[in-house]
Amino acid sequence: MSTTDKYAFGMIGLGVMGRSLLLNMADHGFAVAGHDKDAGKVDSLNKEGGDLQVKGFLDVKEFIQNLKTPRAIMMLVPAGKPVDSVIEELTPLLDKGDILIDGGNSHFTDTNRRVEELEAKGLHFFGMGVSGGEEGARRGPSMMPGGDKDAYAVMKPIFEAIAAKVNGEPCVTYIGPGASGHFVKMVHNGIEYGIMELLAETYEIMKKGLKMDNEAIGKVFADWNEGRAQSFLLDITKDIFKYKAPGTDHLLLDDIKDEARAKGTGKWTSQSAMDLQAPIPTVDVAVSMRDLSKYKELRTQAAGIYSKDDHQQIEGDDKELLEALENAFYFTMIISYAQGMHMLSRASEEYQYDLHLDEIAKIWRGGCIIRSKFLENIYNAYGKDKNLKHLLLDADVAKLVEGTIPAIRQVVAAAVKVGIAAPGYAASLSYFDAFRTERLPSNLTQAQRDYFGAHTYELIGKEGTFHTQWAPEKE
Amino acid sequence: MSTTDKYAFGMIGLGVMGRSLLLNMADHGFAVAGHDKDAGKVDSLNKEGGDLQVKGFLDVKEFIQNLKTPRAIMMLVPAGKPVDSVIEELTPLLDKGDILIDGGNSHFTDTNRRVEELEAKGLHFFGMGVSGGEEGARRGPSMMPGGDKDAYAVMKPIFEAIAAKVNGEPCVTYIGPGASGHFVKMVHNGIEYGIMELLAETYEIMKKGLKMDNEAIGKVFADWNEGRAQSFLLDITKDIFKYKAPGTDHLLLDDIKDEARAKGTGKWTSQSAMDLQAPIPTVDVAVSMRDLSKYKELRTQAAGIYSKDDHQQIEGDDKELLEALENAFYFTMIISYAQGMHMLSRASEEYQYDLHLDEIAKIWRGGCIIRSKFLENIYNAYGKDKNLKHLLLDADVAKLVEGTIPAIRQVVAAAVKVGIAAPGYAASLSYFDAFRTERLPSNLTQAQRDYFGAHTYELIGKEGTFHTQWAPEKE
Repeated sequence: MSTTDKYAFGMIGLGVMGRSLLLNMADHGFAVAGHDKDAGKVDSLNKEGGDLQVKGFLDVKEFIQNLKTPRAIMMLVPAGKPVDSVIEELTPLLDKGDILIDGGNSHFTDTNRRVEELEAKGLHFFGMGVSGGEEGARRGPSMMPGGDKDAYAVMKPIFEAIAAKVNGEPCVTYIGPGASGHFVKMVHNGIEYGIMELLAETYEIMKKGLKMDNEAIGKVFADWNEGRAQSFLLDITKDIFKYKAPGTDHLLLDDIKDEARAKGTGKWTSQSAMDLQAPIPTVDVAVSMRDLSKYKELRTQAAGIYSKDDHQQIEGDDKELLEALENAFYFTMIISYAQGMHMLSRASEEYQYDLHLDEIAKIWRGGCIIRSKFLENIYNAYGKDKNLKHLLLDADVAKLVEGTIPAIRQVVAAAVKVGIAAPGYAASLSYFDAFRTERLPSNLTQAQRDYFGAHTYELIGKEGTFHTQWAPEKE
Repeated sequence: MSTTDKYAFGMIGLGVMGRSLLLNMADHGFAVAGHDKDAGKVDSLNKEGGDLQVKGFLDVKEFIQNLKTPRAIMMLVPAGKPVDSVIEELTPLLDKGDILIDGGNSHFTDTNRRVEELEAKGLHFFGMGVSGGEEGARRGPSMMPGGDKDAYAVMKPIFEAIAAKVNGEPCVTYIGPGASGHFVKMVHNGIEYGIMELLAETYEIMKKGLKMDNEAIGKVFADWNEGRAQSFLLDITKDIFKYKAPGTDHLLLDDIKDEARAKGTGKWTSQSAMDLQAPIPTVDVAVSMRDLSKYKELRTQAAGIYSKDDHQQIEGDDKELLEALENAFYFTMIISYAQGMHMLSRASEEYQYDLHLDEIAKIWRGGCIIRSKFLENIYNAYGKDKNLKHLLLDADVAKLVEGTIPAIRQVVAAAVKVGIAAPGYAASLSYFDAFRTERLPSNLTQAQRDYFGAHTYELIGKEGTFHTQWAPEKE
């Protein structure tokens, strides 16, 4: 590359994700540059780049000077203060019209603030969710960019080239204004938490309820992954059930501590859903089960006290039970997506994101952690009816759900009876049962609130709010 | 009162709660003053005060000048900006050492900020939770004041006088520093959301699962309220099941819309619990069910689609089923408190509140919305062992819980099978089952996280974190 040529795209933060994305771009023929304060990472990039048009710079000014204008620069640094530090350092070096992209998992409220601050300076700020992990970044991620629509045109060719492809179509699209890209990625992660919890419970039910060994459990996950429940998460679960602890004959899985960690995006999803009054109880319980898992000492003590009530075997025909379990899992997977999509539609109204749920389902079909065969159904449902208010109201989805209902009832009841914790399964079913209830018992809640707090209530078929002195006369 | 005498306590905001608290103080012989910008409310106070030593002022300066120093002034104004406005107006009029109390339902993070701002100015700021509604405020509330411990001495005589009494002991105590008072009140409200949801579900199970009429349902609530589950919330529920819509022969309850509102304190509890990694899934689901209730139109559509799967009658002997239901409800009530108390102990560690959980249980036994017979058991449990890590680990509580387990399993399984939504019952049981599980399936979650995100995992009996290249070789 001659010195007069400049690089089409710049990356700040050359950790594994940043480096992988840059190399992915270079693979597709783009000349790209990277910057990191860590000389070792800059060197790694230059070595891994080989003959590709990719160059790492240690000096940030040199990096900036070597980018084509309007510049398109992505940051891949840890969420929170590091993002603000990079912005602060970078802003004086940029020109009006340049595009700055935060490709990390920032909280969407931080992104909102940064969009405002930077638009005021004439810069285009994009919050972009990137899903797919290292492998996805290198070979084809799913990307969710939100920000100024016109500025997106500059980045579009690169992003479409590097994205995962499904049926030849790239897993990236313009999401919407403001922080919508990070918001959609957050909800993606919430759904991911939900499905991961459901897979853990499925493992628990097979292990403790059906007394199956690892080999048999792994085979079930592998089988399911050949059918309608096919998904990336099932796929890796199947692999995990094959991986032996090095130098041993047992699974590495058995040696891993049962304390789940979290980076916080699932928690953000639940907290934001509550702000939006969009119920996503399956995600909520996935968050609280990760939290509960960490109280190992308390759990061990409690196990001692409540051991009389130990996990019992679920009775029945094994083949029939496993068929019910596949149905039940499929049901909960549908509910997880349905809750997430509903949350997106609420956010779209509340934050004026103008989200296209069919497009979002479309770009989630490949590259990302929650990719699955069922996303095709979601894509079709919202494609048929752009104004679909809830996934469970789609006729084709309803047919799938109807077929699984006896099974989900059977599995939850069985787990409940034998004392196996299946909170995600239970929460998904009770969400469904409440959602399909025309008349809920919430009238009692309103009466109670009015009784003790004079919070008033509404009446059926009558405008206005009312208050009653409910207490009987004191004698 | 001569003009040289001054008032011992001042109240800003003479709505129903402020007025009731002031009159309660005056009843106990304290000379108290009130201020409001609404002349009508000032007049109301002066009229209702009668011969009591209570006086309303329209002019804020006159109000301040008539208070004994160091002044003790409580605000009872809506949470959020109104509190800041009052503080801004008041601060220049106060002297160092004066005490300002926010008696409203402020978010504890706002209280944290205000404590800092006002302590810097030499003022003592108290965030105080007040529970009991209008009736409680007038006749004896439960109060949770947090702030400077020495300053509490000034207010203590008044607060102890007006508080509800249980066995002659006042339902108020110094909670802890900073925002701990508002924090504890928030968790109180979270527990309240949980129990209210559980009562709504109990109503639903009796109505749809046992096909009982209102009279029979009301009788069950009244009966339970005579036993171990005795509580304020059961008490008012029993009353609600007696209250006829004026001029009709049916319950007013039946005319009330099934869309539950919320002021947000339950939501705050769930959101804060997630920040603390303290799982409270029963409260979470109570919050999401209030939210779900508002989607009446979607629910009605879903009811049409999924009507084949309609609510069926629970089979069995009615008397035996009702006995199981009482046991199951008692179980879920215990779990609601247990989750709330655990959240308090986590907060005490995290925010250095140095909470005394026995004292908190003690002051919740009277005056407040969640008062109940069972709070005596909680008081005893934490009294016996100040370092009790979780209520379910107390031997006496464990005995009570053990006795209810077959029933809660029976009731949840029955609701699940007939399609009645009982998310609070289900969440309480699965929380319990997970809590008493020594080995959870969270090892799978950790393996998955490491597989797709290189988030590492920990091994049993081995220090450090590890990462594995799980994917099989690509061919």
